[in-house]
Order: sequence, then structure tokens, then C-alpha cells
Amino acid sequence: MDTAAKQLQAEVGRLQHELQTLKAQHHSEDDELITISEYILKRLEQLNVKDYIEDHPTIEWIGTCNELNAAYAADGYARVKEHSIGVVVTTFGVGELSAINGVAGAFSEMVPVLHIVGVPSTTQLKNKPMLHHTLGNGKFDVYTKAAENVTIAQAILMNKTQAAAEIDRILTVCITNVELSRAPPPNDPDVESYVLDEIMELVDDAKQDIVVLVDACAIRHDLRQEVNDLLVKTRFPVYAAPMGKTAVSEEHERYGGIIIGSVTDPSIKERVENANLILSIGALKSDFNTGMFTYHIPATHTIELHSDHTLVRHAKFPGIGMKSLLPKLTERLSKYQEVASRIPMFPKESDDKISHAYFWPRVGKFFRKQDIIVAETGTSNFGVLDVPMPDESVFVSQILYGSIGWATASTLGAALAARDKHLGRTILFTGDGSMQLTVQEISTMTRHKLTPTIFVLNNKGYNIERHLHGLNRKYNDIADWKWTSLLTTLGDMEGKMSKSYTVRSKSELNKLLDDEEFASAGKIQLVEVIMDKYDTPRALQAAADLTAKIAAGQAL
Amino acid sequence: MDTAAKQLQAEVGRLQHELQTLKAQHHSEDDELITISEYILKRLEQLNVKDYIEDHPTIEWIGTCNELNAAYAADGYARVKEHSIGVVVTTFGVGELSAINGVAGAFSEMVPVLHIVGVPSTTQLKNKPMLHHTLGNGKFDVYTKAAENVTIAQAILMNKTQAAAEIDRILTVCITNVELSRAPPPNDPDVESYVLDEIMELVDDAKQDIVVLVDACAIRHDLRQEVNDLLVKTRFPVYAAPMGKTAVSEEHERYGGIIIGSVTDPSIKERVENANLILSIGALKSDFNTGMFTYHIPATHTIELHSDHTLVRHAKFPGIGMKSLLPKLTERLSKYQEVASRIPMFPKESDDKISHAYFWPRVGKFFRKQDIIVAETGTSNFGVLDVPMPDESVFVSQILYGSIGWATASTLGAALAARDKHLGRTILFTGDGSMQLTVQEISTMTRHKLTPTIFVLNNKGYNIERHLHGLNRKYNDIADWKWTSLLTTLGDMEGKMSKSYTVRSKSELNKLLDDEEFASAGKIQLVEVIMDKYDTPRALQAAADLTAKIAAGQAL
Repeated sequence: MDTAAKQLQAEVGRLQHELQTLKAQHHSEDDELITISEYILKRLEQLNVKDYIEDHPTIEWIGTCNELNAAYAADGYARVKEHSIGVVVTTFGVGELSAINGVAGAFSEMVPVLHIVGVPSTTQLKNKPMLHHTLGNGKFDVYTKAAENVTIAQAILMNKTQAAAEIDRILTVCITNVELSRAPPPNDPDVESYVLDEIMELVDDAKQDIVVLVDACAIRHDLRQEVNDLLVKTRFPVYAAPMGKTAVSEEHERYGGIIIGSVTDPSIKERVENANLILSIGALKSDFNTGMFTYHIPATHTIELHSDHTLVRHAKFPGIGMKSLLPKLTERLSKYQEVASRIPMFPKESDDKISHAYFWPRVGKFFRKQDIIVAETGTSNFGVLDVPMPDESVFVSQILYGSIGWATASTLGAALAARDKHLGRTILFTGDGSMQLTVQEISTMTRHKLTPTIFVLNNKGYNIERHLHGLNRKYNDIADWKWTSLLTTLGDMEGKMSKSYTVRSKSELNKLLDDEEFASAGKIQLVEVIMDKYDTPRALQAAADLTAKIAAGQAL
Repeated sequence: MDTAAKQLQAEVGRLQHELQTLKAQHHSEDDELITISEYILKRLEQLNVKDYIEDHPTIEWIGTCNELNAAYAADGYARVKEHSIGVVVTTFGVGELSAINGVAGAFSEMVPVLHIVGVPSTTQLKNKPMLHHTLGNGKFDVYTKAAENVTIAQAILMNKTQAAAEIDRILTVCITNVELSRAPPPNDPDVESYVLDEIMELVDDAKQDIVVLVDACAIRHDLRQEVNDLLVKTRFPVYAAPMGKTAVSEEHERYGGIIIGSVTDPSIKERVENANLILSIGALKSDFNTGMFTYHIPATHTIELHSDHTLVRHAKFPGIGMKSLLPKLTERLSKYQEVASRIPMFPKESDDKISHAYFWPRVGKFFRKQDIIVAETGTSNFGVLDVPMPDESVFVSQILYGSIGWATASTLGAALAARDKHLGRTILFTGDGSMQLTVQEISTMTRHKLTPTIFVLNNKGYNIERHLHGLNRKYNDIADWKWTSLLTTLGDMEGKMSKSYTVRSKSELNKLLDDEEFASAGKIQLVEVIMDKYDTPRALQAAADLTAKIAAGQAL
């Protein structure tokens, strides 16, 4: 039995044991007549959810300012605290609908989030009086129907005898469908062996000119270790798609940077597209993750490993999942060597203004091991992509669903999870426009004594929207805020728990980033970074040019 | 032909003319090949929507901080600007789901709001690439499906030939189903005459001991004038349900106050429940609007006029609507006289703390003709109910749907509509907890030079939730904010356009309310009102006691 199979066997054993334990507890709990909500909490505790509900000994209640922010925070929590889930609790109707966009985003990006909704009593659900929070039309199931469209599974707990089983069903779907690692379906050994032979044939033909491309599903399906083994044993150069950023160590000597279709940095693009063979692991081909679908990699040069199938050139092998396949492939692959190039840092600029070209490599130098780096959908996300991140750092972004405002509230959850896991600093990059959507949640961070460092890029509006559509449109302008007063206005009444800064020049930025007290992140910190209204990161400019071409019918 | 029929005939004529004009324009516009979005704007302009979209000569674009707030603002706009509609424009997925709770609230309370969603191109909708803002599962219709549950009608504009007709269909549904006044279905004359005879028989039996009870649908279905005629000609005493507040002049000498089932002020309750006959106009029997369904009025003493049916004791007459019936009833009813009592004002209290018992009658004295008074679902709404409001003032609240956070964003729309209509001051009452949900929208008010006066009741948390459930529960606590810094932090950078105050005592409150500069509302103003954490308005305390009884199985 090989290593992977042994690991799998061990995992199956662990799961069986856990199930038995749960069943035993379940029965004894039934005898003690625990309430449905106690049962849910017990299960959540077993899933390692820490920050949650009042009265529970280990689960802490985090009250957010509104429900959408709560859903975003649960999403951020789940992204950072792998092998656990995020949980958001709201009331019926008004609460659940306010949260639905955050829940849909988690579903879209396969982040395990459980939404618990408190509903009217069973008698009321039956008699349908004209209650507050209803539509006044006697339709009490409309909110559940709305949720069905944007969630993986739903349960309505209407009686005590079914509740436990229903709760378990939902939690099982949540953790197994979203994060398959705990119980990956086994591959058919004969087909798997055939696929391995096919791949090895291509590898031989490629004359060792092979690159690895890592993407989102390598993270979601818990393949970091397997991918790392592959890289250590093969020394193949490795690149990442935006949603796969930090899936592999970016300090890896053969890490080459980010691939985003034709938006890719030209020197990197050439290296990848000219490789004889590309081994793609966990690809998620959304528009922003692929540079508007502009990969120019012929299928004949590509092997794609996915969670539940494998593609060898044009041939699809359903049921052959990467979790089991990859370790075997690693064993078969021979050693290989080449020097990968990292992207250039610190462009020389004659003025002292903080440009995107300067800012992102510079903050890259500020990052440390085990930092949690959250980037808002939009300008920040495009900017930070080109920056290599330290080992064991966690990059958190929402590239597929792309709901602006997500990052600030998500940072609350990410920082809570980082505290649970004893990780490093939580660092948020957002824009002035984006932050206005969900700004109140910084008060919840202060209240729970979290100490994220928040960079607000103040460039007078929705920068990404300007570049994608409407450079000088009024609808991309926003009200200017006194950003450095935010932390004291929204929570830190006496100004002792927070510190705020404005940096207007490269020298001010450098001075701040080099300040050891600032870097230690002992307080919640907000840095307003003054940037030019029209300046934008290289990758975003490239994406914008591409979007314009597509709109003009010159591409796609 | 009587007056009502003449009015109706005139309205039918007007509508026919309008339709012809639109059709003529429609054809000529088609010839000029206007775009779908231009067509929508043309229609919106005809519906008197003023604040809207960039580039349009009369419609102004109002960019809010987030989508939920935009939907709430559109709702507030439509409530104040009768005979127009509120419009919210968002992007696909992330935007529309963020707004859905605000849209559902408008639907629930029959407020005409149009939600326009920008979607991917028709090609993309057909090919379903993995675009940002999608769920990544190729299902592009999920958001529309979700919206179907909480809207009255939907259209998907997929081709130019159908677009105009579809837009007209949706707008027609929006203005006719939500606000029936423009085209009420005619009553069958024979049945109507029979119903009038039945009512007059009851009126005779009642020996002139008759009271009128006015509710939400009298406002929504544009019956203010008809109700006023009834009161002038009959001099019947009149009371209002919470959602019917300001439907009739509260300066009417026979206006008696608010009826909320068993939550009603006892002296008022007795007068109404002991009347021989109650003429109810436009009732909407939701829980908060009826004191948890505790009207103790026997059906045998009640006549209910509704938009599309009439109830005479136990007999229902479908199709007999109040818009046509009421003027005829008014003509038949003989004159009648009695002195109504207003609720007592200004309780004597020995201390200087600002209690709810003192605060609400006191601000009542501050109100002026044509003020727009917005009250947040919750403590403020219960508090302001007992306060009589001046003639031509407009009371705006969301009692049925009850989504907290609604009021602050709704005030943006209400203030815009008030400006369009040249009405008076816009005054918001909200709590510290509620305002945290949607606080960013005050920056949009400042940006558009609106000058609402905002009272924030600072009582350290969710006061209504404390009283309804969990007096000392941690989940009802919130972070304390520096409220008086909000306006300068969120928009009024130089502190010239706004003014903020904190009042901690009756004397400070009185001094401020008596200050002529403050009362003139020339700037946006925020007043932090320091109140005791546990103090609550009489009506809310009564509702809480009732809820506790219901929970304990002692009522309902």
C-alpha cells in the first residue's frame, strides 16, 4: 500500500471513529433531551468552530453591525481556519435576505459557511399570521426558496425527531461537498493506473520542459501538502493562478509568479506558454482568474488534475480525482531542474508619489511568515497578485464572485480565525470606495480587541470601475471621508486601542513600513494611502485593455 | 353621475390620453432607434422620478455606499413622493442580492420600487462562461429566481423588439398593483348600492356612537382626501393604526390617537372598543400593527373597507373597493358630534434624565407642518406612535416588514423626495444599534447637500430586542461610537456643512429644541440623545409584556 492510500485509509478510520463517537453522544444527548440549538452547537464545537454563541463554554458570540457583514465575516473565518466552517446566525426574512449575498459568495467560491436562521414558531409557520419580517402575503417559504438558489443544501427543522439527522445531513454536505479532503471518493485503480501511464508518456515527450500551474481547488480540496511534495521531488517550476495564490510557497526557489491569461506579466507568460507541457492542478477558470479567458495554452500541451476528474490533453477521465492521483504521479516523475525567475521589484521612479508600481512590491517586503493577507476584489486584488508572499502566509480574496465590500467584513472573520490558530498579523488592502460598503465592521474588530492592519487606498472612487468602465463617470466618484478618524469614531472612543496614519509619499510609506512598532501590529491600525485617481496596477490596466477589446469585438 | 364617478371617469380619460401619448412617443422613438436604457429613463421621467441617472437632463444619479442602502433609499423616496416610484440600479448577482432585502421590504409594505439589474451580455447569458459575480456553476438565472419570491413582477430584457413592451408591463404592474389609485377596478353598481344600504342599517343601529379607524391602505391606495371628506362631513372621531399614522390630520379636533390592539393607551382603547360601530378603512393586520393581533373588537360591531372588498360584520363583498365606495358612504352619512381626547403630554418627572415618557411628547412639540418624520423599526417607532403630528406632515416607517437599519438609508430617499416636492424638514429617529447597520449613508446625504435632522437614541444597544428577548443578553450590546464625530468623519471633512450635539438632560434637550437655528435645519444635524439602557416607550413595554405572555402560552 503506498503512502497516499495509507493516508486515505487512516482518514477513513478517523472518520468512522468520529462518526461512532458522534452517534454515541447523540444517543446519550437524546436521553438527556437537549434542545435543537444545543445540538447544533455541540456539532459546531466538534467542527472546531470557536467564535460563536453566547452561553456556550468554548464558542464565542461575535455580534456584527449587520447581517451581510456577518456572512462575509463567516466566509473570512472559514477561509483562514481550514478544516472548520464559518457560521452566520440571522433572523427570519430581513436578516437572512440581508446576508444572502455573503452566503452566495461563499457558495460560489466553495467556502464552507453554515447559515442558521431563526424562524417563527411551528404554530405560526402553520397558521401564517401577518407577522413582522414577512411579506404580508402569507408566504412563509419564500426566503427558503430564495436561499435554495445560492446554497448547496437546505434543511427546515420542523420537529424534534428529525432535527438531529437533518442537522447532520447539512453539516456533512457542508464539509464534504465543499471541502472534499475528509472523504474523497476513491479512484478506480485500473483507470487510475491507465491515466498515470498516459501522463508519463506525455512527460517523456516533453523532454523535461514542464511547468506546474496551481489554482483555487488545490486549496479548497486540501492539496497543499501533495503539491509541495511534487515540487520538492520534481523541482518543476511552479506558477499560480490568482485564486491559487499562496497554495504553494512563494519562497520556493522555483516559484515563478502569477498566470492570468494574457494579463500575465509578459516575461512570465512567455515561459509558461512555451513550455512543452503544463501540469495544471485544481484549475478554476473564471473570467478574472484567467484574464478574461485568455489562456493561450493548447490542450495538447496540458494535463489538468481536478477534484473529480482528470484531463489528459483532450481525453477526460471522470471519477479520477487529484487527491489520490497526485501522490502517485509524484512518485513516478523523475527529478528535474531549472531556475525560475521572480518578478522584478521596486521600479525606479523619479517622483515621490506612491504609485501602484511602487506600492505593491514595497508592501511585499513588509509581509512576514504566517501573515493573513486579505485583498479586496478590485484594485487591491490585481495589485497584490504580482507580489510574492512569504511561506505559510495565507492569501484571502474573492476573485470569482467578486462582491465589493466583502474584504473589510471578511477581515473580521479572518482575524478571529488567525487568533484561534495562533497565526500572525492580519493585513487588509482595500480601497476607499470598497470600504464604504461595510465600514462599520471595524468597530466589531476593535470591540473584540483584534489588531488588523488596514491599508485604505484613497484614490477618490471606484478605481477598478473607472478602468473597466467609465473613467470619468460621476457614478465612480464617492464622498471623501476623514479616514484617520474612523477608528476613533467607530469604537475606539479614547483613542488608546488604535492608531491611524496617512502616507502621501514613498518616503512616508517607507518610514512607516520600517517602523518596528507599526510592524508589530499591537493595535488595530489604519493607513490611508494617498494615490493618484487614475493610477492603477499593471495587471488591472492589462485586464481593462482586454475588456475594452472584448467590448469592441476585437477579442474572445 | 356623482362626484366619485366623475372623478373616476376623468382619471380614466387621463390614463387613456397618457397611454396614447406614450404609444405615439414609443413609435417615434422606435423610429429614432433609442436604446433600451434610454427608453427606461424616458418612462421613469414620465413617472416623475427625479433623482436618478447620469447624463439624463432631469434625472439625477444618487450613488449610495452600498446596494442595500440604495434599495432602502428608493423605498423612502417612493413613500414620500406619492404618485412616483423609487428606482434602484445594481449590478448582477453581488449587487442585486445585496439589495434584495430592501426590495422585499418595499414589496411587503406595498411601496412601488423598481429594481433595474445590469446583467452580462446576451451572448454570455447564452454561453454561460464562468464570469465574476456568478456562482461558478453556470446557473445564470438563480438571482432572477431568488427575486421572484419577493417581487410583484419580473422581466428579463433579452431582445430589442420585446423590450419596450416588457418595460411597460413591469412599470404598469408597479404603479397599478402597488398603488391602485390610478386605475381602481370599478365596483358593480348594484352590489355597491346593496352594501351601502347594509352599512346604513348598522349606522342607524349604532345610535351615532361610531368611530373611524384608519390604516396603511388608506395611504397606499390614495384615500387621504376621501377619508378627510368623511371626517369633515360626519365629524366622527377618528383613530389610526400605527401604519395609518398621518393618513388623517392629527390636528383634527376629533383625532383620538393610535390604536394598537391591547397595546393601546388604556383610555383610548376603552373609547374605541366600547363604540357601537367601528368603520375601519384600509386595515393591514400585521402583528406589530395590531399589538400582536389583540384587537378586541367584535366583527358584529365592525365595517371594514378595503381596496378590493368590503366586510359588513361577517359578510364579505368581493370586488367592492373603498376608493369608489367611501365618497358615496360619506354622502349618505348624517352629521354627528362628539369631543375626542388627545393623549396627555409632558408627564411630570422629578429628575432631569431624558426618559421616553418625556422625550416623545417633547419632540412632538418640535414638529412642524410638512415635516417628513422617519422612525426606525423598533424603539423609535413605538415611541413616536403616541405623538400627534402636524397637518401635512408625512410619517414614514416600516412596521410590517420591520428591517432594522432601514430608516437611516430610507431617510436619504425621503429627503431627496422632500426636496423634489418642496416639503419641510426631514427628521429621523433611530437608535444607536439600528444606525450602525446602514450608517455610511449619512455621507451620501452630506454629499448631496441634504439637511436632515437625525436623532440617535443612545441607549447602549438594541433596546427593542432587550425588551422582546434577552434584557441583559450580550448579543443585544453593541460597540459605543463617538456619534458626534460621525458627520465630520463620513463626509463633512471641514465641519462646515453639519452640526452635531449630545443632549443628556431634559434641560439640554429643551434648550436645543427651542433653538431657532437648530429648528431651521439649514445643515445636516445629528443629535445624540443619552437615555437609560433599560428605559423604553410605553407602547413597546406593553408589546413586550404581551409577547412574554404569548411565549408563556397565556395569550393568543
